[in-house]
Amino acid sequence: MTDKKLTLADLAKLAGVSTSTVSRALNDNPLIKQETRDKLQHLAKQHNFSLNTAASRLRSQKTNVVAVIINLDGDTEQSISDPFLLKVVGEINLALNKQGLELLLSNSFMASDDWANYFINSRRADGIIVVGQGKSQANIEAAANAGVPLVVWGDPKTPSNYPIVGSDNYLGGRLASEHLLAAGAKNIVFLGDPGHAEIGERHRGYMAAIAAANVTPHVVSIDITSRAAYQAINQLLLDKGLCFDGIMACSDMVALGAMKALKERYISIPNDVALVGFDDIAMADISHPSLSSIKQNTQRASVLLVEKLLAQLMGHSAQSQVVEIELISRQSSQR
Amino acid sequence: MTDKKLTLADLAKLAGVSTSTVSRALNDNPLIKQETRDKLQHLAKQHNFSLNTAASRLRSQKTNVVAVIINLDGDTEQSISDPFLLKVVGEINLALNKQGLELLLSNSFMASDDWANYFINSRRADGIIVVGQGKSQANIEAAANAGVPLVVWGDPKTPSNYPIVGSDNYLGGRLASEHLLAAGAKNIVFLGDPGHAEIGERHRGYMAAIAAANVTPHVVSIDITSRAAYQAINQLLLDKGLCFDGIMACSDMVALGAMKALKERYISIPNDVALVGFDDIAMADISHPSLSSIKQNTQRASVLLVEKLLAQLMGHSAQSQVVEIELISRQSSQR
Repeated sequence: MTDKKLTLADLAKLAGVSTSTVSRALNDNPLIKQETRDKLQHLAKQHNFSLNTAASRLRSQKTNVVAVIINLDGDTEQSISDPFLLKVVGEINLALNKQGLELLLSNSFMASDDWANYFINSRRADGIIVVGQGKSQANIEAAANAGVPLVVWGDPKTPSNYPIVGSDNYLGGRLASEHLLAAGAKNIVFLGDPGHAEIGERHRGYMAAIAAANVTPHVVSIDITSRAAYQAINQLLLDKGLCFDGIMACSDMVALGAMKALKERYISIPNDVALVGFDDIAMADISHPSLSSIKQNTQRASVLLVEKLLAQLMGHSAQSQVVEIELISRQSSQR
Repeated sequence: MTDKKLTLADLAKLAGVSTSTVSRALNDNPLIKQETRDKLQHLAKQHNFSLNTAASRLRSQKTNVVAVIINLDGDTEQSISDPFLLKVVGEINLALNKQGLELLLSNSFMASDDWANYFINSRRADGIIVVGQGKSQANIEAAANAGVPLVVWGDPKTPSNYPIVGSDNYLGGRLASEHLLAAGAKNIVFLGDPGHAEIGERHRGYMAAIAAANVTPHVVSIDITSRAAYQAINQLLLDKGLCFDGIMACSDMVALGAMKALKERYISIPNDVALVGFDDIAMADISHPSLSSIKQNTQRASVLLVEKLLAQLMGHSAQSQVVEIELISRQSSQR
């Protein structure tokens, strides 16, 4: 560590390049050759120089912080401890860091209803990434109408005045259900709350596949948690016995809760009940039996969310975008 | 939502109480009766009133933000995507939210080496929670010496000028190793890097148990990732065959990587090799065979970290504290 704090100009002089080259290189701007970026970043590190000093923040009037709001409904027990939400936060954080931005973790309980004031006008953050559309989009719409730079992880086919990045949930629901039908299941339970925007689309896909196969739908509406799924499947078995031979769960955590209830009663997966989840979290691959799932490409989505937010911060507009999904077939549905 | 923004005084008048009662109630201060708190919080919500407005932040010169630094070593491939680190972040976030604070997620690559300037003097945050001691404590010590309110998740027995909250890693390492010895293992590999503060303590515990049992230690030093563990166990089997009958892994993710390598070669767990991990992440219970582990009480630790940080913010000192651990015996070590 040097005693005297270097300026951007000092660093440029040291390296024999212009100040704008230094600034771009430290922001990892692809306009600058990779080796030049590496060299200048190394030099900056050596001299403990950071672009994000208080001075440069005040000068630019930017916080270099992006608020990530985990948008939970008031009546859910799902929390930031949910492995899928944590995975998304981790990947958004990596994507933000690559752009020199940091992540302020918030949620719909912490923030007041007025996000424009809470985050932007009070200079907590330059922009907002909302994770999950939830049941109501009123706060999101109000913030977007107030001109807040904002992107949403959700169902990209929802009509909106803000860009939404996410999976094709309808297609995912349809593929999962068709996969269960192909495995011979005829009484497939949809386990999840259709009133929730993204899950509603998965439910629509399920209904389309069910109708095409000319079988009867069976929807069990529950909260997005393992515990709710465990309780619901236990109750269903208690009330009606084994009245189903397939489950399309609205998330992997919900599928794992259902799996636990089935295993405790020695109901064979996949022979008695075939099971498909949604998300493809790490636990899907590790569970026993391993869990078939619709893989959401959260890494790609995170990069897109950050790109579309940066576009807005630079005064450009950005459009919703669908990220490809994939059915990952594992033991829980192979019979 | 009302058009005119209410002040604290307006709200107090509406409720017929003093402004300090309103302020305390909205901060969930236990000095105020629960029903009064509920009533005032409901009233505030109704009028879209938030204590954390820009005005109150400027008045108090507080950001109401705590920076959480994921302290990763320069040579590790471990990242914020690691399930254990994400679990800790999620639980710290819940503990902070309960105190009306928000979490700024950072890491040792984003922050310059001068944390006092980067976070506190530039008013990004009021205080810092460091997750992980890593291999070098220089940045932490410098920040603590500069008077930054700071707490660390790490090994609480490390001598330090800042409070450390964490598990008794030495005891954990010893219990895990004694458990493997009791299961009949005689050639136990320690899988992890003893150069890393917390893992070093787990290694010391392993060495103590090994010495007491009069068997030979076998340390395989690797990075804290599943991938590194998978590669190391593959290489060991290739080079020396099945030269071990037990593994004490420095984390559950490391144990799961080792498990994958063993399963691919049809080496039976626990019959050929007994396996114990560390952390007790959700995947330990779900894997097949289920993974024995040393449970770290991250929820309790998170509450303590926030309490000790708040104490410092109020000018009090805080001491390091050990959080109890527990051996969770599952299939991977029961023979």
